[in-house]
Amino acid sequence: MNPNVHIVVIAGGSGTRFWPLSRRRHPKQLLALGGGDTLLAATFTRVEAVAPPSRWWMVVGKGHAQGCREAAPRVPAAHVVVEPVARNTAPAIGLAALHLAAVDPDAVLVILPADHHVAQPAALCAAIDTAVVAAKQGAIVTLGITPSRPETGYGYIQRGAADPRAAGAFKVQRFCEKPDLERARGFLSQGGYDWNAGIFVARAQTILAELERQLPPVYGALGAVRGALGKPDYESALATAFNSFAGVSFDYGIMEGARDVCVVPTSCGWSDVGSLDALDVVIPRNAAGNVVVGRVVEIDTHGCVLHAAPGQVLAAVGVSDLAVIQTADATLIVPLSKAQQVREVLERLGENGWSEYL
Amino acid sequence: MNPNVHIVVIAGGSGTRFWPLSRRRHPKQLLALGGGDTLLAATFTRVEAVAPPSRWWMVVGKGHAQGCREAAPRVPAAHVVVEPVARNTAPAIGLAALHLAAVDPDAVLVILPADHHVAQPAALCAAIDTAVVAAKQGAIVTLGITPSRPETGYGYIQRGAADPRAAGAFKVQRFCEKPDLERARGFLSQGGYDWNAGIFVARAQTILAELERQLPPVYGALGAVRGALGKPDYESALATAFNSFAGVSFDYGIMEGARDVCVVPTSCGWSDVGSLDALDVVIPRNAAGNVVVGRVVEIDTHGCVLHAAPGQVLAAVGVSDLAVIQTADATLIVPLSKAQQVREVLERLGENGWSEYL
Repeated sequence: MNPNVHIVVIAGGSGTRFWPLSRRRHPKQLLALGGGDTLLAATFTRVEAVAPPSRWWMVVGKGHAQGCREAAPRVPAAHVVVEPVARNTAPAIGLAALHLAAVDPDAVLVILPADHHVAQPAALCAAIDTAVVAAKQGAIVTLGITPSRPETGYGYIQRGAADPRAAGAFKVQRFCEKPDLERARGFLSQGGYDWNAGIFVARAQTILAELERQLPPVYGALGAVRGALGKPDYESALATAFNSFAGVSFDYGIMEGARDVCVVPTSCGWSDVGSLDALDVVIPRNAAGNVVVGRVVEIDTHGCVLHAAPGQVLAAVGVSDLAVIQTADATLIVPLSKAQQVREVLERLGENGWSEYL
Repeated sequence: MNPNVHIVVIAGGSGTRFWPLSRRRHPKQLLALGGGDTLLAATFTRVEAVAPPSRWWMVVGKGHAQGCREAAPRVPAAHVVVEPVARNTAPAIGLAALHLAAVDPDAVLVILPADHHVAQPAALCAAIDTAVVAAKQGAIVTLGITPSRPETGYGYIQRGAADPRAAGAFKVQRFCEKPDLERARGFLSQGGYDWNAGIFVARAQTILAELERQLPPVYGALGAVRGALGKPDYESALATAFNSFAGVSFDYGIMEGARDVCVVPTSCGWSDVGSLDALDVVIPRNAAGNVVVGRVVEIDTHGCVLHAAPGQVLAAVGVSDLAVIQTADATLIVPLSKAQQVREVLERLGENGWSEYL
């Protein structure tokens, strides 16, 4: 293990697409979808071969800090970086880089979203090891997931020439925004395109230098925080800083314009578990093709996601390709193909004055 | 009001087709499907113009006696006849006739199932008044519901000639078992066929005489009960009697072979509310064609029955023609066209050892 490598899990998301499993106060990364670890805890444990818990960090939202601490108790208390307000990933990663640069001037950050699933952790760790080699030489490295289908929900990365600095790394030809289906099919048939999974590896100094060059308002605001690190006025300085700029993603704000980026392709069985219809990557389908959690009665029912609440029973008769998510106080029925429309339910709950279910 | 007319509600059913709203200990007649009265209470109140509460009776199952008493508190305590075991409708009606003959030798029984719905109670009461006229002259009268569709779930009654004893009553040409769709369509196009709703009007003496003639084992067993009426050994005599014969329906055991039957046709907006897909007769559909109870979010959802449990929320997105029944501890999803298959859920619950949800 390289002693300068630190795991940084970005856990600020809300995961509204998993309602009613996820809630305002219980976001997706705190769900134990497979019945064991939470997604957050699993994110750390699957890269334990890369860095031990003493070098684990996480950036969390204010409202979920306590829940994240409880879900990932092996993260040292001083390594839980709390965002005063959500400002998307570039400020979150910049803040983590600030903290790490202060404790380890040669820190290499392995930046991971908190709510994804990886079926082959060893392959992920191997790709990270490759990425670290390039990162130590100044690159911001992104992992490129070998695409298995013409997915239109992800951005793509077109590989360029092999990067001579690290075997297995490639220059990035270009970043491609989420394509339509035709373009996505073209990417797959042409080859050389990988999914952008939001997994980045870079030195803290590289990140801060790119922030300074590309997002000077963010960099400038974080400069005031740097001076307050470990001091009583840290929290107020951080709040002032985060309230001074708008949210911006690391992909858009940093990666697309970065001077030195490369990609390490990997087939590690990655999924962003983006919505209810992706639950089958975490929980295998049974013989009837259903993903079943809890006390469920299935009769003439196929291709469904059926989630019973603890202590309750869920019975499905004669239905197909539906998600039925039962929780203690809310049940959702939606065809898996329309799982994205869950957002509309949340709006309607607010409009109806039923925000206790959000 | 005719002082010899008594209302007898047969409330021994279990209503498994309404699971999870109905349960072993909370049968369909105890449900307040429309949000107000229970079906049992509504059965009495809609015929209050025929006879006052002092002449209301009900026959209930042992396990539901307390619940039925609480749901219909206006029924005099002495008029709650408890069956020791369920033996279908002929013994239940025979037992009621036995009780009534003892208190009123000229009693006319208006026998009503406990779990049906009638949209126009005045029309029902008018038909009963007609039936009483014929019944007092010795007929067993059945109400014939003017059919509105070629229903295959009900028996039919073919009308014969007008019965001279009561204007509006007809001789019964024949009783027809539940037909297939083709025959049912034929009944409707031919005319002169009514649905058999299980509503009967007859003198207690007529019922007992037909029992003696057609079901001598039942009549004989009830004879021992007659001697025990009002005595300490009533319950044990009743248990002995009911355990001595097999169950038999009043339709099959008495009506089909009775010497003097007639039918009074009526269009009173009757429904047996036989399963979840009939809930729209009790609760009107909204503009989206959904029957909605409780806190329900409907998005792009049509033709559904959506029942939220108290204190819970139910969200349906992009589905059609489904029943989604959420209760405190059980949720059912089934296409309305397959609502009959709910019975299979109950079997499966038992097989899985989840009988606490039955």
